[in-house]
Amino acid sequence: MTESKLKAAITPARTEDFPEWYQQVVRAADLAENSEVRGCMVIKAWGYGIWENIQHQLDLMIKATGHKNVYFPLFIPLSYFQKEAAHVAGFAKECAVVTHHRLEIGDHGELRPAPSAELAEPLVVRPTSETIIGSAFARWVQSYRDLPILINQWANVVRWEMRPRLFLRTSEFLWQEGHTAHETKQEAIEEAVEMLEVYATFARNHLALPVYHGEKTESERFPGAVQTLCIEAMVQDRKAIQAGTSHFLGQNFAQSSGIRYVSRKGIEEYAWTTSWGVSTRLIGALIMTHADDDGMILPPRIAPAHVVILPITPKEETRSAVLEAAATLKDKIAAHRYADESIRVELDQRDIAGGAKNWEWIRRGVPVRIEIGPRDLSAGTVALSRRDQPVKEKIFMPSAEIVDQLPVILGEIQRNLYDRAKELRDSNTVRIDSKQDFYDFFTPKNNEKPEIHGGFALAHWSGNPDVETQIKEELKVTIRCIPFDQEIRDDRPDRCVISGEPSPRRVLFAKSY
Amino acid sequence: MTESKLKAAITPARTEDFPEWYQQVVRAADLAENSEVRGCMVIKAWGYGIWENIQHQLDLMIKATGHKNVYFPLFIPLSYFQKEAAHVAGFAKECAVVTHHRLEIGDHGELRPAPSAELAEPLVVRPTSETIIGSAFARWVQSYRDLPILINQWANVVRWEMRPRLFLRTSEFLWQEGHTAHETKQEAIEEAVEMLEVYATFARNHLALPVYHGEKTESERFPGAVQTLCIEAMVQDRKAIQAGTSHFLGQNFAQSSGIRYVSRKGIEEYAWTTSWGVSTRLIGALIMTHADDDGMILPPRIAPAHVVILPITPKEETRSAVLEAAATLKDKIAAHRYADESIRVELDQRDIAGGAKNWEWIRRGVPVRIEIGPRDLSAGTVALSRRDQPVKEKIFMPSAEIVDQLPVILGEIQRNLYDRAKELRDSNTVRIDSKQDFYDFFTPKNNEKPEIHGGFALAHWSGNPDVETQIKEELKVTIRCIPFDQEIRDDRPDRCVISGEPSPRRVLFAKSY
Repeated sequence: MTESKLKAAITPARTEDFPEWYQQVVRAADLAENSEVRGCMVIKAWGYGIWENIQHQLDLMIKATGHKNVYFPLFIPLSYFQKEAAHVAGFAKECAVVTHHRLEIGDHGELRPAPSAELAEPLVVRPTSETIIGSAFARWVQSYRDLPILINQWANVVRWEMRPRLFLRTSEFLWQEGHTAHETKQEAIEEAVEMLEVYATFARNHLALPVYHGEKTESERFPGAVQTLCIEAMVQDRKAIQAGTSHFLGQNFAQSSGIRYVSRKGIEEYAWTTSWGVSTRLIGALIMTHADDDGMILPPRIAPAHVVILPITPKEETRSAVLEAAATLKDKIAAHRYADESIRVELDQRDIAGGAKNWEWIRRGVPVRIEIGPRDLSAGTVALSRRDQPVKEKIFMPSAEIVDQLPVILGEIQRNLYDRAKELRDSNTVRIDSKQDFYDFFTPKNNEKPEIHGGFALAHWSGNPDVETQIKEELKVTIRCIPFDQEIRDDRPDRCVISGEPSPRRVLFAKSY
Repeated sequence: MTESKLKAAITPARTEDFPEWYQQVVRAADLAENSEVRGCMVIKAWGYGIWENIQHQLDLMIKATGHKNVYFPLFIPLSYFQKEAAHVAGFAKECAVVTHHRLEIGDHGELRPAPSAELAEPLVVRPTSETIIGSAFARWVQSYRDLPILINQWANVVRWEMRPRLFLRTSEFLWQEGHTAHETKQEAIEEAVEMLEVYATFARNHLALPVYHGEKTESERFPGAVQTLCIEAMVQDRKAIQAGTSHFLGQNFAQSSGIRYVSRKGIEEYAWTTSWGVSTRLIGALIMTHADDDGMILPPRIAPAHVVILPITPKEETRSAVLEAAATLKDKIAAHRYADESIRVELDQRDIAGGAKNWEWIRRGVPVRIEIGPRDLSAGTVALSRRDQPVKEKIFMPSAEIVDQLPVILGEIQRNLYDRAKELRDSNTVRIDSKQDFYDFFTPKNNEKPEIHGGFALAHWSGNPDVETQIKEELKVTIRCIPFDQEIRDDRPDRCVISGEPSPRRVLFAKSY
């Protein structure tokens, strides 16, 4: 089970076939697999462990900004979608619809939906919960004293996918959706911006994802929103992935759901609402950003295990001493903390070949591997490998030092992954000022693989949606956002890179997931 | 907004109309409400906070026994239910069935399931996941080396309810479902027993629910199980509520799903599986066990807030000093720990009348209320009220002492709630040895309210299912379990209390939720 130093664990390499490499990493790292239900995935323990850390850490931030968790029904009456016209147009095409509430044995012994149990009104499996939460807000709010309402839920949602891909596009996915109602427009806008900042901070500091943040153009807006704010990351094939969105919904949903309140002036008014969410898609973004040709590389903060200890027991006579030393080391490490959490350490005592075991943990992307064998025991050392460094590289350290060093090393790995991703992004983000350059940038040089090309283009745009249609059709490029950052936006009037129309600032163009 | 000392917060009282009292407590404590979707509830922040604590604390216990969390699809193909005959018979009648994957605008502008998007095979919204998890186990298991598999998931499930009641019986509910596969029958039985013990420990120590544990009779078994183990609690109307179940599934699901492995002897064999779960129903059990005529009473360990601080600010000139002292006290309390967690403390600064505010927290059942006003400030004291004591009772304590005393007080409340519930149960658990006594015990004395009667009857039963049918029809009584505890079971042969047939031991009879 030994593997050559030259052969990587994942075939094909990123540069050969990025989409296939992605699928192979998901498989090799044991993160998830397709189920027999089209578009629905099984999230395995290692993948779900990442989601649990995302949930726990982001949940603390959501609560620290004053929100409380709740739970709303999975099913939404069909008529609710009809209330908000723009919303229904955006979602109507891709919903799972429940039409029966009972099964029965049919004439040929087969199980079937009981015709006598057809629902009077079909129920839609929630694709998002604005409508049903809006109707609750309408019940809960009478006066300005009842505002703001600041809630969040962690839930599963369903949007039927014809071309599913694990984590990136699945018919069912897991997410959190925050929903708030406010007295004033200003307060609701501030809420939407604040939550986008929470996402940006979380992406940078926890997921090691450098992100640009900004506002979506009208054509990319959430159905029913007045403003959609987003964070956008660049993955290793230089495409963009949206890593979180926050919507200022104006009074649209308040009007369709009837969220009215008596204001401080004694006048009945509509509330102002927001919603915001991130999903298991973030795990897809993590993989495409950090993984390499040997498998997953996990940012320590969200790794299900920070450290794995691999005891090496070649001879029976030293076996118990090695296992004992490994167990002692495990307890010592677990008593230490990194990033406000106990260090998560696993001891892999499985009776399989050491090489195979080591490679399994490499593919899974555990940040630190520690080998301890009979020779280390006598020398008082251990061999430490960092997943952000070449897989064969080992650092020999006195075992007395390693425990204190681990939080430092984990912090270095976290920062290193961020820096690498930022370096890739920055070196592939360019200002483009001519249509020819724009088309060249987003056109593969030839029809051969590797097809990795392009990146983020900061270019002028007038605001004309026809330009968006044109570049989407011709290049599969979209405007990812109008950046918040003035320096990136470059607020000097110029001409749209495509149409030549007057433009106030640059926007961020890219191909995307 | 002041309320008389004599009038309780909840109408009707428990003794007047227990079912209606229950609904009023749910409402008054702001735990949950019905949604417009029949049988589906909205779990509000205070109710969901209880569930979050249950999740977090039980999850630690599930992980400490070697299980990892995963996530399986919400949808299960209809054909999966056909595989396991006993299973389908048990669940087939109450499922939500997805038949379409798209909506469209119909001829009259109405939204409808698109006829062109009818699914070839309907999908069932999971009522439980044995079948789909079994099919994954079949993929994952080849050899005895792949066993055991020990997984759990936290998820929503749907079982259509015609007579829903908040938390107790809802069409959608939240739960955890553990699923394991083992090499031997013995190991699987031990797993099922171990997880029941985890539930019993959790119920007693965290939820303050005294429980009997034992095995269900064949007629009460989970569809497809060989043995169903359960814990049963008694609530205040003396009925039983099942608070958790653990199933030894034998090789039934292994055979229907094809979970085969090559054994140590090189022979292909079927694995042995288990499953076990608890749900948001536990919150219903908590309410019916601990709440009183003033609203909810929460066991401290699972209370969303352990303590609320209520500043009393009658005069403008002392207002800021009181608020400052309250904020300082909050920080001091939050830095202390109770039951391995930071003390959860809220400071309620809302500008509403003090009496109304105090009653709101009484109804919500927060374990400890601390009032702090101008007089307390000069006296260096605070007034503490415990929810397990009469609502008007206050303990005046030096504010310097309260912080150190709180963990002790919370521990006392936790123990007190358990002791009360145990006292109620024990005083209403009787050994019955004649059919007449049995019928008397379970028959209301007259047709008037209060209808609270009966309790737990420990009586002999031969094993004849006809007896179960008879008492269910005539008295609405079922066998809750065959207790594990020999002393309770009373292992001396006698005669069935109903049929007179020979019986090896007593079983536990009760009316139930």
